[in-house]
Amino acid sequence: MGYSVEWKGDHVRLLDQSLLPFEERYLEIRSGGAMAEAIRTMKVRGAPAIGVAAAYGVLLAARATEGEPREQRILAIEESINELGSTRPTAVNLFAALERMRAALGKAEPGAITGALTREAYAIHEQELQATRAISSYGASLIPEGSAVLTHCNAGMIATAASGTALGALVEAHRQGHVERVYATETRPLCQGARLTVWELTAEDIPTTLITDNMVAYAMSHCGVTCVMVGADRIAANGDVANKIGTYGIALIAYAHNVPFYVAAPLSTIDLSIPTGDSIAIEERDESEVTHLEDRRIAAEGCSILNPAFDVTPHSLVSALVTERGIIRAPNRTRLRDAVSGQSERRS
Amino acid sequence: MGYSVEWKGDHVRLLDQSLLPFEERYLEIRSGGAMAEAIRTMKVRGAPAIGVAAAYGVLLAARATEGEPREQRILAIEESINELGSTRPTAVNLFAALERMRAALGKAEPGAITGALTREAYAIHEQELQATRAISSYGASLIPEGSAVLTHCNAGMIATAASGTALGALVEAHRQGHVERVYATETRPLCQGARLTVWELTAEDIPTTLITDNMVAYAMSHCGVTCVMVGADRIAANGDVANKIGTYGIALIAYAHNVPFYVAAPLSTIDLSIPTGDSIAIEERDESEVTHLEDRRIAAEGCSILNPAFDVTPHSLVSALVTERGIIRAPNRTRLRDAVSGQSERRS
Repeated sequence: MGYSVEWKGDHVRLLDQSLLPFEERYLEIRSGGAMAEAIRTMKVRGAPAIGVAAAYGVLLAARATEGEPREQRILAIEESINELGSTRPTAVNLFAALERMRAALGKAEPGAITGALTREAYAIHEQELQATRAISSYGASLIPEGSAVLTHCNAGMIATAASGTALGALVEAHRQGHVERVYATETRPLCQGARLTVWELTAEDIPTTLITDNMVAYAMSHCGVTCVMVGADRIAANGDVANKIGTYGIALIAYAHNVPFYVAAPLSTIDLSIPTGDSIAIEERDESEVTHLEDRRIAAEGCSILNPAFDVTPHSLVSALVTERGIIRAPNRTRLRDAVSGQSERRS
Repeated sequence: MGYSVEWKGDHVRLLDQSLLPFEERYLEIRSGGAMAEAIRTMKVRGAPAIGVAAAYGVLLAARATEGEPREQRILAIEESINELGSTRPTAVNLFAALERMRAALGKAEPGAITGALTREAYAIHEQELQATRAISSYGASLIPEGSAVLTHCNAGMIATAASGTALGALVEAHRQGHVERVYATETRPLCQGARLTVWELTAEDIPTTLITDNMVAYAMSHCGVTCVMVGADRIAANGDVANKIGTYGIALIAYAHNVPFYVAAPLSTIDLSIPTGDSIAIEERDESEVTHLEDRRIAAEGCSILNPAFDVTPHSLVSALVTERGIIRAPNRTRLRDAVSGQSERRS
C-alpha cells in the first residue's frame, strides 16, 4: 500500500477514501480544480493529508499554466489557491500549506515558478512524513505494556499522507508489544472509524474492536480502556483542540473515568492566531450525511438536522499533546507558544 | 394512530416498529410463539410495551389450549411463559408481567383460566396506561418554559403501548407551551431515535433536531440544552439505571455541563431484588446490527464487535426519577424502597 497522496511526476495518485474499505481505488488528479473537488467531497480527508493534497493541487495549477504570460499565470495559480482554500473551513493544515505555496509563488524567479512550487510541495510532504514518524515514536512512549487504547475517527496513514498521528503511535506501540487491543469508534455520520481505522489497524494485525459512538462510556467502564489517543484538525493557542465531532464527549467520559486523553498532531496543526477554541470555525456539513446512508434514508422526515464536522475539546481535558518535537503535558498557552517558536527557530 | 400493542378480541394488533418510519404496518399476532418472535426481533420494543405484549402473548397461549385437559393446558401456558421470558434479558417489565400472568394462572379456578388471564393482561395494560399518563404529567412539571430537552432512544407511545414515559412528558410539556426544541439522538445501532422518536415528535408538531450520538457534547455546549429526559429498562434498588446503550455517556456529559438528567419510568421498572447496576444483566445483541445497515455492510472486515444493548448510569448522575407516583429527586436505596412499598400498600 502506498501513501494516500503521492506525486507521480505529472499527476497526483490519490486513494479514494470515500470508497474504503469496500474498494481500494486510486484516482489520478490532474488539475487544481479536480483536487479541490476531491477535498470538498472528502475523497481525501484527514487534516495533514488535506494539506499535502492542496499543495500538490497548487502545483498542478502551476503546471497547467506553463507557457502563459507570468502575470496571467500568477493570477491563475492564486485563483486555484483560493479555490482550494474554500473547500473545508476547519483544518489549519490546509491553510498553512496554501500559504506556504503562495509565499513560494511570490518569491519565485520569473521562469522558475514550477520548480519553486515543486520544491515547496515536496518539502511540505517530506516534513509531514518526518513529523508523523516522530509523532508515532513519541506517542508510542505514552503507551505502556498491556494497553487498551480507544481512538476516534481516523488519524492514520491515509489521513496524513504519511505514517499517521494517533494511529501511527498505536502501530508503533503495537510493534513494541504494548497494545493489547484498540477500541475504534465507528464515527458517525461518515463512519471513518468503521471504514478506515478498522481497515488500517487490521491490516497491521492489531486486535481491534469496533464500537458505535455511544458505547464509549460502556467501553471505559467495562473493557479496561487505559488511554484515549486521537488526532486533531486545529489546535488553538491555549491548547483547545478541534477534532472530529464526538471527540469532546469522549474527553469528558475519559476524564470521568480517570483515563488519560492524548492528542497526537503535528505542530502545523497549532494555530497561534486563534486564542481559544471558541474562535475555531466549525464546518457544518450537509444534512444528508445524517439522514441518509449513501442513497438510503435512515431517519424519519420532518426534523431539523445538526451536522457539525468537529467539536472543540477544552485544553483542560487534554492530558498531553504529542507533537513531532516531543510531548506537551497539560498543554496551555505558554507551552504551546514555546513549542511552536522552538520549531520556528529550527526552521530559520 | 392507535397504541402500538392492542388486544383485538382474538389477536393482538402490533405496530411493527422495525419498519418505522418508512412503513406503518400492523401485525396480527395470533400465538404466544409469534409474540415471542416479535419481541426477540424487536418488532415490539420499549420495556413497558414488551411487558404488555408478553402478557397478551400468554393470553394467546391460553386461548390456543382451550378445551384441552387442565394439567396439559397449564403446562403449555407455562411453556409459553418461559419462551416469552427467554426473548430479552434486560427489561424487568417483561419478567414482572410474566410473573403476574403466572400467578393469575396459578390462582385461576378450573375452567376459568382464559377469563383470569384476560383480566390480568387487561389490568397490566390498563396500569401501564394510567402510569404513563401520570408520568407524563409529573415529568412535564420538571420542564419549565423555554426548555430545550435532549432525549435518547425512544421512550414514547410506541415504546410503552400507552402515552410514553420520557416522550410522554415532552408531549405534555409541549402542550403547556414549555418545549422550544427537542434534540433526539439517532441511537445507533438500530437508530430508534432517528426512526421512532423523530416520527413521534414531529407527529405532535414538536420542533425536533436529530443529532448523531456523538454530537451530544456539542449540543450541550452550543445549543443550550436545558435538561435530559430518558426512559429506563431496569432500575436497581440503589437507583442505578439500565437504559439504551449511550445513556451513561449522556449522563456524564450532562453532569459536566451542569444539565439536569431525568429518568422517566414506571415503578414496575424498579427491581428491588437487584442491589446495584453491576448486577443488571446486559443483553449483548448480534454483531450484524453494528456492521450492517439492513443487508449492506458498513464496516471493514476483520475486527471484533461490541454490541451491548444497554449501559448502566449510576444513580449519582440521576437528578430525578419520574414515576407514576411522583418525582424521586436524587434517587437512592431508601427513596426507591419507600416509593415501591408505597405502591405495594396501595395495591394491597
